[in-house]
Amino acid sequence: MIFASDNWSGAHPAISAALSTHGAGMAAAYGSSDLDKAVEQRFNEIFEREVAVFFVGTGTAANSLSFAAVNRPGGVVMCHREAHVVEDECGAPEFFTHGARMAPVDGALGRIDPAQLRHELARFRPGFIHAGQPMAVTISQASEVGTLYSRDEISALAAIAHEQDLAFHMDGARFANALAATKLSPADMTWRAGIDILSFGATKNGCWCAEAVVFFDPEKARQFPYIRKRGAQLFSKTRFIAAQFMAYLDDGLWLTLAAHANLMADQLRDALAHSNRARQAWDTRSNEVFAILERPVADALRAEGAVFYDWNMPHGSGQALNENEVLVRLVTSWSTEPADVERFAAALAATA
Amino acid sequence: MIFASDNWSGAHPAISAALSTHGAGMAAAYGSSDLDKAVEQRFNEIFEREVAVFFVGTGTAANSLSFAAVNRPGGVVMCHREAHVVEDECGAPEFFTHGARMAPVDGALGRIDPAQLRHELARFRPGFIHAGQPMAVTISQASEVGTLYSRDEISALAAIAHEQDLAFHMDGARFANALAATKLSPADMTWRAGIDILSFGATKNGCWCAEAVVFFDPEKARQFPYIRKRGAQLFSKTRFIAAQFMAYLDDGLWLTLAAHANLMADQLRDALAHSNRARQAWDTRSNEVFAILERPVADALRAEGAVFYDWNMPHGSGQALNENEVLVRLVTSWSTEPADVERFAAALAATA
Amino acid sequence: MIFASDNWSGAHPAISAALSTHGAGMAAAYGSSDLDKAVEQRFNEIFEREVAVFFVGTGTAANSLSFAAVNRPGGVVMCHREAHVVEDECGAPEFFTHGARMAPVDGALGRIDPAQLRHELARFRPGFIHAGQPMAVTISQASEVGTLYSRDEISALAAIAHEQDLAFHMDGARFANALAATKLSPADMTWRAGIDILSFGATKNGCWCAEAVVFFDPEKARQFPYIRKRGAQLFSKTRFIAAQFMAYLDDGLWLTLAAHANLMADQLRDALAHSNRARQAWDTRSNEVFAILERPVADALRAEGAVFYDWNMPHGSGQALNENEVLVRLVTSWSTEPADVERFAAALAATA
Amino acid sequence: MIFASDNWSGAHPAISAALSTHGAGMAAAYGSSDLDKAVEQRFNEIFEREVAVFFVGTGTAANSLSFAAVNRPGGVVMCHREAHVVEDECGAPEFFTHGARMAPVDGALGRIDPAQLRHELARFRPGFIHAGQPMAVTISQASEVGTLYSRDEISALAAIAHEQDLAFHMDGARFANALAATKLSPADMTWRAGIDILSFGATKNGCWCAEAVVFFDPEKARQFPYIRKRGAQLFSKTRFIAAQFMAYLDDGLWLTLAAHANLMADQLRDALAHSNRARQAWDTRSNEVFAILERPVADALRAEGAVFYDWNMPHGSGQALNENEVLVRLVTSWSTEPADVERFAAALAATA
Repeated sequence: MIFASDNWSGAHPAISAALSTHGAGMAAAYGSSDLDKAVEQRFNEIFEREVAVFFVGTGTAANSLSFAAVNRPGGVVMCHREAHVVEDECGAPEFFTHGARMAPVDGALGRIDPAQLRHELARFRPGFIHAGQPMAVTISQASEVGTLYSRDEISALAAIAHEQDLAFHMDGARFANALAATKLSPADMTWRAGIDILSFGATKNGCWCAEAVVFFDPEKARQFPYIRKRGAQLFSKTRFIAAQFMAYLDDGLWLTLAAHANLMADQLRDALAHSNRARQAWDTRSNEVFAILERPVADALRAEGAVFYDWNMPHGSGQALNENEVLVRLVTSWSTEPADVERFAAALAATA
Repeated sequence: MIFASDNWSGAHPAISAALSTHGAGMAAAYGSSDLDKAVEQRFNEIFEREVAVFFVGTGTAANSLSFAAVNRPGGVVMCHREAHVVEDECGAPEFFTHGARMAPVDGALGRIDPAQLRHELARFRPGFIHAGQPMAVTISQASEVGTLYSRDEISALAAIAHEQDLAFHMDGARFANALAATKLSPADMTWRAGIDILSFGATKNGCWCAEAVVFFDPEKARQFPYIRKRGAQLFSKTRFIAAQFMAYLDDGLWLTLAAHANLMADQLRDALAHSNRARQAWDTRSNEVFAILERPVADALRAEGAVFYDWNMPHGSGQALNENEVLVRLVTSWSTEPADVERFAAALAATA
Repeated sequence: MIFASDNWSGAHPAISAALSTHGAGMAAAYGSSDLDKAVEQRFNEIFEREVAVFFVGTGTAANSLSFAAVNRPGGVVMCHREAHVVEDECGAPEFFTHGARMAPVDGALGRIDPAQLRHELARFRPGFIHAGQPMAVTISQASEVGTLYSRDEISALAAIAHEQDLAFHMDGARFANALAATKLSPADMTWRAGIDILSFGATKNGCWCAEAVVFFDPEKARQFPYIRKRGAQLFSKTRFIAAQFMAYLDDGLWLTLAAHANLMADQLRDALAHSNRARQAWDTRSNEVFAILERPVADALRAEGAVFYDWNMPHGSGQALNENEVLVRLVTSWSTEPADVERFAAALAATA
Repeated sequence: MIFASDNWSGAHPAISAALSTHGAGMAAAYGSSDLDKAVEQRFNEIFEREVAVFFVGTGTAANSLSFAAVNRPGGVVMCHREAHVVEDECGAPEFFTHGARMAPVDGALGRIDPAQLRHELARFRPGFIHAGQPMAVTISQASEVGTLYSRDEISALAAIAHEQDLAFHMDGARFANALAATKLSPADMTWRAGIDILSFGATKNGCWCAEAVVFFDPEKARQFPYIRKRGAQLFSKTRFIAAQFMAYLDDGLWLTLAAHANLMADQLRDALAHSNRARQAWDTRSNEVFAILERPVADALRAEGAVFYDWNMPHGSGQALNENEVLVRLVTSWSTEPADVERFAAALAATA
């Protein structure tokens, strides 16, 4: 009953098999193998346009190097105040941009509020150099608290970003979960809604280590090969990432895996809906569930073997905990066993 | 007949198998799984002492983060003038150290000359801040041109480094090949000879992506977890590196693979020794062979399907090419087929 | 009637004279002249202990290099949310620290609230590397909105900082004004209250260009000469800064000038107290006055020649503007003419 | 008899007087005062075209920020192997560019050899990212060893730089001395010969602290205000630099002062020409003289009160010292007294 993180899951057998298959024989290094090129072509198909795609090793790298690609001196990235880039990457975005500021923007439940974004951007008057200069807006889809932006919401933020000539970036660490939940196409959720750069995450959803930076305007990526290499993210045997992506994207495996994770989360949501000592803290549709539990309930679940983390109450939740309650995060993944969810539900029901 | 680079090889089946094996089930993320800990213990055994070991994704990361760990403001790293860190990493060492200088030191055939090291260090007078301050000496073992340092040679450089309170780092991208060639133990070739930090490479020798930074004084590594995370090199599913290392280090697989690569190189050296139109440019004992070929010979070999790169003549080779000659690099690996070496030898003999 | 900024004032005649006096003849460069050493000794006297003092060119440099001196990988500086370092230095603190984060802490009217500081620091659990690691706390004295910390308030924050092994830094861009207003001694307001590093500003208070970084524990400054030089802040003719400081510190000129600026501000405060169409937004005692004016009053004053800036309402002011009101900042300096203050008061009175 | 460095000189009385004159009254801060604008206009006149000029505090800042303005990821600056930027700035150019490499190019006596520049650039093949990418070529005029480039020599290097789309930068720490020695106009020695960016130094030649970065294509300077501010080089009271430049450039004072320094150096050269125990190491025409002295001669001169530094033999001098000889550097300045030169000459003659 591990609901600690989707990072705790392993690799899907098809991913492992692809690694073994592509392990035989020689192939050109540093991204120039036939396999690398075939996977790049797959990205074009998936996004219904020519894109420039670059494999990297971690989501932190994907985000940080994305910002480096659009950096300006004294640069500022507008992000949600609880974004992964500002809370959980140990300053990597700042490091890779030589000190760009991750400027927090308010918004309920992990989503940037457009009015707040305008408000924060208004503080940067053209030519007033003391404040620095915005260079990008980033959103997480799905967000860090499991919520989702609709296509219209993404477009609205894109319009604000582009008015001011800012790059619009999406942290897609859980991109597949967001697609599966919204039923949007990859193109509709990204470039057709105004996204310029995507951190395309696959690690959490069945790969060992497969992340990519996707530029929807390949022209903007001209310096990126140098940025990636200088950032120590050009792997010699890039085949090992390409092979994972090949299997991941084949026959819609990625969306199948994400749909499974979301479904497991749905069942957790159901279980919570039937409890009188626990409840969803706010509604989510992706593979993260946030629950307010009475403390004895949390203890009882953990005693039964459930593993999950306590969480800080996010901005704009409209919730307050009383002393006897705790907010926890439950994360499902491609590998979550239905039996585990059932056991969890039963253990929860037993606390009634 | 691929002799382009050991980076062109894939993963050894045992490595792929380990990935599949460890793919099942859940495990704690970010380096805290049981498997991670077991591999760390294996490093202690291999080096016959407690070490602090950190997995990273690329050799460039291992080198760059090693320097970051011992950085000083205005820092200078003394390296061979043809070292990988200065010639082939796109400025990553400088980037991760916020601008440390890689200061070139002379020495024949890829090895720092101790007298030259003293000479260069003498330029940095204590307290003369304009010149910056040395902070580390780095050597590559095996070197970029296939040569090796003896244990005594390493110790001699260590003494110079330590006299001036400099960290002594080894770039071990081909560490196993060097061990196999010298018959030294891992401990004797590193900390017993004065090495403080090792970039332990396994990717070229049978892994997909497995590199580690090894601190022989764990106390010196206290800030390294932050340095690695900030450098976007903390993988969420570190199991995927740990699993590779587990198989790699098991039953001496790593040394077996390296010995094979070296043996294949021996056979190339033999083939060159019997040619009257080609010769070794200088003697090597590891898995890189440098040959001076008459141009028609190089053409003929390539026409037969041999893949190898032209190379620039290194410092101190004592060789000069005439117009009709070309210097080439031939690299073998764990996966080089004896049949390929035989075909190469035959094709070479046919040019006589 | 210039109340735009104390940066608009020039240099005091004694400062200019000192420059001329010390202009004659030769002297050793890069901080090693007799004059440099004499000024360093003056700092020891003023602070009643041995300090390490380093001249730099701008307040931004003093702050940024101070943080660089105590930097840690993934480092975080706790600062007031409206601190100069986060709002007005174009990312220089982040740049000079290679990406340390300036983490905003709440507190009314420009002063960090101790409870909020504890609250923010609590988010950084030991060993939880994802969040980065705090390395310093910085306060501005006088603050950016003219308020002052008492010695006890400084000590309280120092205790929190030191509990967690954080450096405690004071941005003293208006250090002299704070001393003059509080009647504290330089020692009592700094190291005796727990300050570790001080950005000692003199530019705003009568110099052309004279800032210094003062380490109260000289041992902590050992790497600073390199940090300053690498940061392009080691001036060749440091005499030109030393000469300014010599005159500035001589016979208490600095405190005399600051007291004059504060007195001029007192008279502005008096004028506001007598107006029925303007009022102090909050009480200050240093050389900055914040006033809420009816818009026609602001227009009338400007029409009379008064120069001052509109200001954003700071956090925790307890004030709200109605549509007919504007918040403005009035800054006096060593060179503010009493006649100008009288004219301003008269113009204000005329709006009644 | 101070011949240690032109940095040991003070400020010319006209410079000090300008500071005093412009000290009175209020003026807008941060470079927007009328005086700032007037000086900017003076630069346009001097260079016979519209330029973008930015005041900074040190020559190291001017050089480092110039490189930052044209930086590319993995960037490489081609410089003479003994250039100030690589030998004497404590890594500041690397720091401000986040790790660009200063790549040494050979050339006799402080001047880049065009063939060597082509040779070094040839190593950077387009698209071969491992090596990084050149972004600029920099030359020092006058060079660090007192030599000068002719206009044709500058043009030849400019052609090579521009062929490869590299910015061409001149470190003009002794720009006025070079102009005075070559009789070239500022325009002819810079943009008409292909220079894109100039570090315009005035500190060594009579100012306290006055350096500027001059962009000959103002369009290229659009991001520079942010680069300068982020680099902590935007002074609040920029008047203090502007005032120095105003006096410096007025009535040709700068060229008069430089011509005096050069003349004093001529007289040192004459004195050496008449000695049988000392000689010029190589011929120079600017304000630096390099002499090979018998050791007892050096001792005797120092015993008489002469102050000068020993120097390392530069590349390509064609000179070798015997055991009884020492290479020394003698630097004159605007403030060198003819009487001091005469005393030096007499003391030298007395050793015959």
